[in-house]
Amino acid sequence: MATASPDGVPYVVPLSLAWIEGRVVLALPAATRTARNLAATSKARLGVGPTRDVVLIDADLDRLLAVDEDEAATIGAGYAAQADWDPRTAPAGQVYAVLRPQRIQAWREVDEQEGRTLMRAGAWLT
Amino acid sequence: MATASPDGVPYVVPLSLAWIEGRVVLALPAATRTARNLAATSKARLGVGPTRDVVLIDADLDRLLAVDEDEAATIGAGYAAQADWDPRTAPAGQVYAVLRPQRIQAWREVDEQEGRTLMRAGAWLT
Repeated sequence: MATASPDGVPYVVPLSLAWIEGRVVLALPAATRTARNLAATSKARLGVGPTRDVVLIDADLDRLLAVDEDEAATIGAGYAAQADWDPRTAPAGQVYAVLRPQRIQAWREVDEQEGRTLMRAGAWLT
Repeated sequence: MATASPDGVPYVVPLSLAWIEGRVVLALPAATRTARNLAATSKARLGVGPTRDVVLIDADLDRLLAVDEDEAATIGAGYAAQADWDPRTAPAGQVYAVLRPQRIQAWREVDEQEGRTLMRAGAWLT
């Protein structure tokens, strides 16, 4: 999960994610550089999978939602079912970053560089 | 390899890398967003390894060096020996991004968050 500060310093950390109702959701502590960057710029780029067969997702922040808010119940259940940990039982201060995917690319090696874009401006290409 | 534009839009792509004379070297086409971001901000953050056992490197751009420059001969040999491809035989327009590591962290899971910094301000911690 890559983010950047408003003045262009990149940051990237490994995080679990879930797909819930057309959104990419990550749970993370509110007091992290990733959460602060997201709040400031609303922009993320995610790499999913191994180096030679990665899916790259450009996404905009929809909202940051505290794990213990009532609204977060559906997200919490979906997240725990898909990811390998449950933010609802984690130490306090976790938030869900709910991201709206804008562009999705399947990025293997040079031979796949053509036709690698699967979603553009939030719409799946067919 | 994560970079960002000067106004904070993150970018991340999978790339091979080599360690050469205390520098992290990546070969990539000059006409890519990663190369343009690097030229503009001089800042990169790299993740090496799988999600649950990743090494994260914050690095500053030392220089961008065209693959066919005389100066690049030593780098080219070292790169080809370590990475899984040889930029010297790739299509024209490749450059080496020579990066100076500033901070290195070993990032596994929550239990390793303490003591995870291995290099600070370019110096190995012992």
